[in-house]
Amino acid sequence: MTVPTTREQCAALDAADPLGPLRKEFTLPADAVYLDGNSLGVLPVRTPEVVRRTVEEEWGQGLITSWNAAGWTELPHTLGDRIAPLVGAAAGEVLVCDSVSVNLFKILTAALRMRPGRRTVLGERDTFPTDLYIAEGVTGLFDGARSVLLGSLDELDEQLAGGDVAVVLLSHVDYRTGVLLDMAEITERVHRAGALMVWDLCHSAGALPIDLTACQVDFAVGCTYKYLNAGPCAPGFLYAAPRHHAAVRQPLTGWFGHAEPFSFKPEYRPTEGIGQFLTSFPPLLALAGLRATLEIWEQVDLAQVRAKSLALTELFMGRCAQLGLEVVTPAEPERRGSQVALRHPDGFPVVQALIERGVIGDFRAPDLMRFGFTPLYTSYTDAWDAAEALREVLASGEWQAERFHRRGAVT
Amino acid sequence: MTVPTTREQCAALDAADPLGPLRKEFTLPADAVYLDGNSLGVLPVRTPEVVRRTVEEEWGQGLITSWNAAGWTELPHTLGDRIAPLVGAAAGEVLVCDSVSVNLFKILTAALRMRPGRRTVLGERDTFPTDLYIAEGVTGLFDGARSVLLGSLDELDEQLAGGDVAVVLLSHVDYRTGVLLDMAEITERVHRAGALMVWDLCHSAGALPIDLTACQVDFAVGCTYKYLNAGPCAPGFLYAAPRHHAAVRQPLTGWFGHAEPFSFKPEYRPTEGIGQFLTSFPPLLALAGLRATLEIWEQVDLAQVRAKSLALTELFMGRCAQLGLEVVTPAEPERRGSQVALRHPDGFPVVQALIERGVIGDFRAPDLMRFGFTPLYTSYTDAWDAAEALREVLASGEWQAERFHRRGAVT
Repeated sequence: MTVPTTREQCAALDAADPLGPLRKEFTLPADAVYLDGNSLGVLPVRTPEVVRRTVEEEWGQGLITSWNAAGWTELPHTLGDRIAPLVGAAAGEVLVCDSVSVNLFKILTAALRMRPGRRTVLGERDTFPTDLYIAEGVTGLFDGARSVLLGSLDELDEQLAGGDVAVVLLSHVDYRTGVLLDMAEITERVHRAGALMVWDLCHSAGALPIDLTACQVDFAVGCTYKYLNAGPCAPGFLYAAPRHHAAVRQPLTGWFGHAEPFSFKPEYRPTEGIGQFLTSFPPLLALAGLRATLEIWEQVDLAQVRAKSLALTELFMGRCAQLGLEVVTPAEPERRGSQVALRHPDGFPVVQALIERGVIGDFRAPDLMRFGFTPLYTSYTDAWDAAEALREVLASGEWQAERFHRRGAVT
Repeated sequence: MTVPTTREQCAALDAADPLGPLRKEFTLPADAVYLDGNSLGVLPVRTPEVVRRTVEEEWGQGLITSWNAAGWTELPHTLGDRIAPLVGAAAGEVLVCDSVSVNLFKILTAALRMRPGRRTVLGERDTFPTDLYIAEGVTGLFDGARSVLLGSLDELDEQLAGGDVAVVLLSHVDYRTGVLLDMAEITERVHRAGALMVWDLCHSAGALPIDLTACQVDFAVGCTYKYLNAGPCAPGFLYAAPRHHAAVRQPLTGWFGHAEPFSFKPEYRPTEGIGQFLTSFPPLLALAGLRATLEIWEQVDLAQVRAKSLALTELFMGRCAQLGLEVVTPAEPERRGSQVALRHPDGFPVVQALIERGVIGDFRAPDLMRFGFTPLYTSYTDAWDAAEALREVLASGEWQAERFHRRGAVT
């Protein structure tokens, strides 16, 4: 696809966009370009009604009968099965429950137990911090275990060669730079060294095709509130390769992971399969948001998502480069997720000034401006207009106004 | 209060009930007596609008700005502060997050670390099983640690005398029998033996006054979806006595428990105070249910709740005893929670037959029929009518019909 050089060309691309009709499925802020769907996805139009039904009918009227009548009991599994095709997994391999952090805790603990002769959890220093904090929490529970952080992936082989690495935890797409890692190649390298591979899919699930099965990934975690649009802090999901289901032992052994939860026996006996990762039940009101948005995802071709994502980011990166900005996100499509990071020493006030102009991106310390492109609802003209607004903010110097320097927003 | 002996006397008590006006705050199933609020609390009338506002305005319109503009960032703390008076705690001592099971995992792990010379977690065999399963999960992470289950509290002193008990975990009110334990006396006994005391408040929070501070309790967990009516599987809460805040170290070290979450530093450093128990952020849609129902609780006098609860259960127990049923729940008010358990070898079909008559209780294997009394919306005539329905079900033998013997419901 040729990169458009005028707004008119962008409009023509929008008119021909096979994903274009999906835009009306989402509630977009008026007079704004929302480029923060990699932080919090927007509200699907159909969600309020699904939530209302869950609250007023399933809870309000159905009460405890909804456990069966409304299928509540099966939701961690059925919703997981509906996420599975988005990450290249089969039914029975994905479970919806808890948060990314809690799920990672289960998986890293299980992984250390699966490699009893090894005590190192290997991560990357620039990974989203909660992953590193959880790794620290897990290694603190095992004698001699430690969490080692790579300054760069160039150090991976050297660490693996030491023979002590039990498990490697990496983000598929870096939350700051938008760098996309080669899941197949890295997973294979980690396996060759006898370690297990855990991928954090928070910034790739729903943003690009993922094939956990083909890449022989051991475990993965992901969130549902960014590209998947399930609602603020909606429950996470976890994946465990079926070859590990029999041997795995996770420590958050709660009622709903029991083989016979209604036998009320005092001893724990895990159920078979992915269900053993279930600790307690996710809040039903939060699951309603996921139920709603997955109806949209069932209509989506991820190859189209990826093609549009790359076109949008290429367009935006090109325009930003022309402004003389340092583009941190890789130009090579195979190394790029679905966001663009720009480095600017005054990134914080620049982003605030952009927000005042209706272009909503965010800032990550110390100097990165982040713009997420969510192909289900971001248009080519959005990308064009965002770059134009950035040009005007920088040309006018308006970001230097005092009001743009005040901190406090969680973005 | 004299126990009423006619339905007319019950109606008179309802007319004079200081909590009576609160009944209209709740959506009650039509033509039914709901006595399962100890499993899932009913929908408050005000909740759908609070949820709608959260979905459509805070998420849909506000998007990321709602982290500050709608106070999202502070909700685990502000909602915890609003629960605090219900359990006899002060602001800064209660946090809303995760589930009961996950919170218990944090607390039991922290407790074992606080008593490094001791390796036993002591529980009661009849406690709600998820508590025991979590204790098993935690002790599996510590060399030499074990979970010991008391057949009865009579064995408590003997176990404590062994000197190896690090922490005792008990349910304030037993989920099956409705037995209420003496929090002050037991906590003191446990402390005298050098152990820490953790109370599970799932069946007492919102059912009766609790004074964690006066009882010098170390830690507590509770749920919000039973007597508190926050919605199915709504997030849990945890309490940590302020004297432990400085020394405690819990293992689920996530982003939101960090001292500077937005510094994105790779090393974990817990924030001070109760916030260090926060791992990730609870789903905002689920928190909406809690926000709504706490508006009601702010109008409630727990002494009135307790007085009415005891009157309701006494009335129901008396009527059931007249039917020749074995009442398992203690007659002594100081040993009784807010539910009534009846033993019947055919309890399952009897409960199903009652449900068909519009009296919704539940069944716990092998032979207990459970009826929860929730004074904010259960009336004296409800209690009377429920006992009448039970009399008719037993007198007619209608519970013997084949359709009442089919299993499957989660109640």
